Amino acid sequence: MQNGSGPAGSPHFAWANFALTILHSEEDRLRVTYELAAEAEEDAAAKARDIALEQTVELPEGSFPAVIEERIVGRVESLTQIEEQSWRAVISFDPVTVGDDLLQLLNVLFGNISLKSGIRLAEVGWPPALLSNFEGPGLGVAGLRRNCGVSERRPLLCAALKPMGLSAAKLAELAYEFARGGVDIIKDDHGLANQATAPFEERVAACQAAVQRANRETGGSCCYFPNATAGWDWIGHRAVFAAEAGCRGVLVSPFLAGLDTLGCLAEACNVAVLAHPSFSGSFFSPGHGIAPQVLLGDILRLAGSDGVIYPNAGGRFPFSETTCAAINRNLLRPLGDLRPSMPSPGGGIDVARVPHWIERYGTEMMLLIGGSFYLQRNLRQAARELQETIRRYCDGT
Amino acid sequence: MQNGSGPAGSPHFAWANFALTILHSEEDRLRVTYELAAEAEEDAAAKARDIALEQTVELPEGSFPAVIEERIVGRVESLTQIEEQSWRAVISFDPVTVGDDLLQLLNVLFGNISLKSGIRLAEVGWPPALLSNFEGPGLGVAGLRRNCGVSERRPLLCAALKPMGLSAAKLAELAYEFARGGVDIIKDDHGLANQATAPFEERVAACQAAVQRANRETGGSCCYFPNATAGWDWIGHRAVFAAEAGCRGVLVSPFLAGLDTLGCLAEACNVAVLAHPSFSGSFFSPGHGIAPQVLLGDILRLAGSDGVIYPNAGGRFPFSETTCAAINRNLLRPLGDLRPSMPSPGGGIDVARVPHWIERYGTEMMLLIGGSFYLQRNLRQAARELQETIRRYCDGT
Repeated sequence: MQNGSGPAGSPHFAWANFALTILHSEEDRLRVTYELAAEAEEDAAAKARDIALEQTVELPEGSFPAVIEERIVGRVESLTQIEEQSWRAVISFDPVTVGDDLLQLLNVLFGNISLKSGIRLAEVGWPPALLSNFEGPGLGVAGLRRNCGVSERRPLLCAALKPMGLSAAKLAELAYEFARGGVDIIKDDHGLANQATAPFEERVAACQAAVQRANRETGGSCCYFPNATAGWDWIGHRAVFAAEAGCRGVLVSPFLAGLDTLGCLAEACNVAVLAHPSFSGSFFSPGHGIAPQVLLGDILRLAGSDGVIYPNAGGRFPFSETTCAAINRNLLRPLGDLRPSMPSPGGGIDVARVPHWIERYGTEMMLLIGGSFYLQRNLRQAARELQETIRRYCDGT
Repeated sequence: MQNGSGPAGSPHFAWANFALTILHSEEDRLRVTYELAAEAEEDAAAKARDIALEQTVELPEGSFPAVIEERIVGRVESLTQIEEQSWRAVISFDPVTVGDDLLQLLNVLFGNISLKSGIRLAEVGWPPALLSNFEGPGLGVAGLRRNCGVSERRPLLCAALKPMGLSAAKLAELAYEFARGGVDIIKDDHGLANQATAPFEERVAACQAAVQRANRETGGSCCYFPNATAGWDWIGHRAVFAAEAGCRGVLVSPFLAGLDTLGCLAEACNVAVLAHPSFSGSFFSPGHGIAPQVLLGDILRLAGSDGVIYPNAGGRFPFSETTCAAINRNLLRPLGDLRPSMPSPGGGIDVARVPHWIERYGTEMMLLIGGSFYLQRNLRQAARELQETIRRYCDGT
C-alpha cells in the first residue's frame, strides 16, 4: 500500500483499486424483510442503513470506496411504517456476499445484527439462482412416507423414546411396544445422547433390533430414528453407525451441532434427517430475532431437513396456531427445486386433540406424541388407539 | 412390556423396572441459576419445576417412576424473589444427564426451555468432575502471547481484514500493511467465507505469505488467523489448509458452525481458535436467554476457544461495560484445570479510546480494531501509532 494522495481529510482507498468482475442481475438479489423498532422515520432509515453495512462490509460510512458500496453493501429497497415505533425495511443483498455457503447465508441474514436490538427478520425472498446452490431435503415428505409405507391420506405418527435414565434395554422395550402399536417413526428423545445409562451404540443396536422384530411380526415399516447429535468429530460416526444398524433416519439438533450438519449427514450416510429445535428458542422473541417460519421453515428446509419438529400451539410452548401454520406453509410451499420438508408439530400434543390438528393443518405432517402416550397405562394400546382414531378421522368414517 | 397391574388411575411404570447404577455425590451436581419472570411465588415455583422436568425427562408429572424423579429430574434447590415479578431459582442436575458431551450440556442448560419465555440462565456452578470432562483452550492466553511474542505487560492488538468484495491480492496487501504496522494478530472479517471475490484457499495463501514477508522484514511474529467457518464437511479441510499454509490460528463462528467445532479443530489441526459471536445475539435479551458472561465466557471457554471476540461497550452493540467485564472475568478466572481464554473486545472500538479500555479491563486482553483503522489514510501508520500509544500507556511513560 502507498500513502494516500487523495483529498485531504478523506480516506484515500488506494487499497481498493480494483473492479468486481462477477455481475448479478436484479432478480438474483436476496431480498430480506426486517421489522425494526424505531421512533421516527429517520431513526428507522438509519437502522436499515446500519443493517446494510453491518451484514456486509462491517465498516463505518466513508471508509470504503464506491465500487464496494454499489456491489457489496446491502441496498435498502423500501421502508414503510407498520405501526407506531415499528417499521418494515426491505434490504437486498448481492448473492456474491453469500456464495454457496449456508453458514455465510445465515451470517448475511442475521449474523452480527443478532447482537443488536429491535431487529426481527420477518421474511426472505429467495432468488432462484441462490436456491439452486442448496440441495434441500434428500427425501422430503414423499421419501419419509415411502420409507414408512404411509399414503398421503393420513399424517405420519411419531413417538419419542424417553425418559433419559432408562437403560438401552428398557428403551428398546418401549420402542418395541410403540412399533407394535403401529407408530410410523420412533425417535429418540433429543436429550438421549451418549449418557452412561444408555450409551449411543448400545441403545441404537437394541432399539433398532426391537423395531425390526416388531416389523417382522406385524409386516409393518416402522422406522427408528436415533439422536445422532454430537460434536463435530462424532456426529458422522453416530450417523454411520445408525445407518449400518439399519436405521433409515436420524434426529439432529442443528442449533447445537451446526446448521450445516443436516444436509451433510443425509448425503454422507444416506439417511433421513429430522431436525429438532433445541437451543433455537431465543430467536423467537417478538421484538428481536427471526420469525419461526423463516428459521424453522425456510432455513431448516434449505439446510436439508426431511422433517422439522417444532413446538406446536396449545402444548408446553408459546407458539400460536398462526405461527405453526406459517411454519407448515414454508416447509411445504414450492421453493425452487427443493423438496418439501415434513412439518412435525410436537411439544405437548394431547392425543385427544389430534383430530383438531388434522383439521387445522391437513394431513401433510407428522404428529409427534410424547408425554401424552406416557400418561397412559399401555403404550402399545395407546398408540394403536390413536392410529385408529387418525385412520377413522382421515377416512371420514 | 406387559399390561399394567398397578393401582387403577395411575400409570404402572412396568417399563421402568430398573435401577440406576451410577452414583454421583452432591458436590458433583451441576448447579444452574435461572432468573424467572413470574407473578406470585407459586407461579415461580411451578416454572422452576417445569424447567427441572423439561430439561431432563421431558415428561409430565406422574408419568415416570420415583427412581427417575430422584436421579434424573432436575432438583429445585432454592427459589428467592429478586424484585417484583422476578425470581431466582437454583436448579441442580445429576451429571449423568450430561455425560461428557458439550452439546448435551447445552441441551440440559437451555435446550428446550429456550423455546419457552421469561427464563434467563444467569450463572452456572461448575462441579470439578464435570469440568474435567472438557479440555478447554489448547493454548489459552499464554499460548497466544507466546505465538505472538508479546509479554503480559500489554494487551495484544488485533486487526480485521475487510471488506468482503476485495480480491485475495488486495486483502493480502492490507494484511501486509497491518503486519508492518506491528499488529499482533490479523484476522479475517467473519464475513469472509469462500466468496468468488476472494476464495478461501487463494486468500489464505496470499495473506499468510504477505504476513510472513512482513515478519521477515520486521523480525516480528504477527499471526494471520483466517476465517475457517464452514459447513461440517468443509471446516476441517479449511483449518488443515490454514495450518499447512503456516497459520497458527483460525477464526470460527461457533454459533453457525456448531459449538463443538472449536475444540475439535484446535486438537485436530494444532491451531489456535478464536471464537466469533456471530448469530449468538438473540440469547442476550434481558428477559429470556443466557447471560453473555455464561455463553461467551464460560461456555466458549469450555468449548476450547483460545480467545473470544465479543461486542465491546461503547461501540456498535448494546453490551454494557459491566457485562463486558463479567465476560472477561469468566474467561480468565480459575476454572478447574481449564486454561484462561483471551478476552477480545471488538465491534467498534475507537483507537482514541484504547487507553480507556486498558484502564478499565487491564492488559490481559486482545483489542480488536476494525473500522477505526479503515477510517484512517494509512493502515500501517495507524497501526504503528496505536501500538506506540499502547506501549507508552502500559509502560506508564
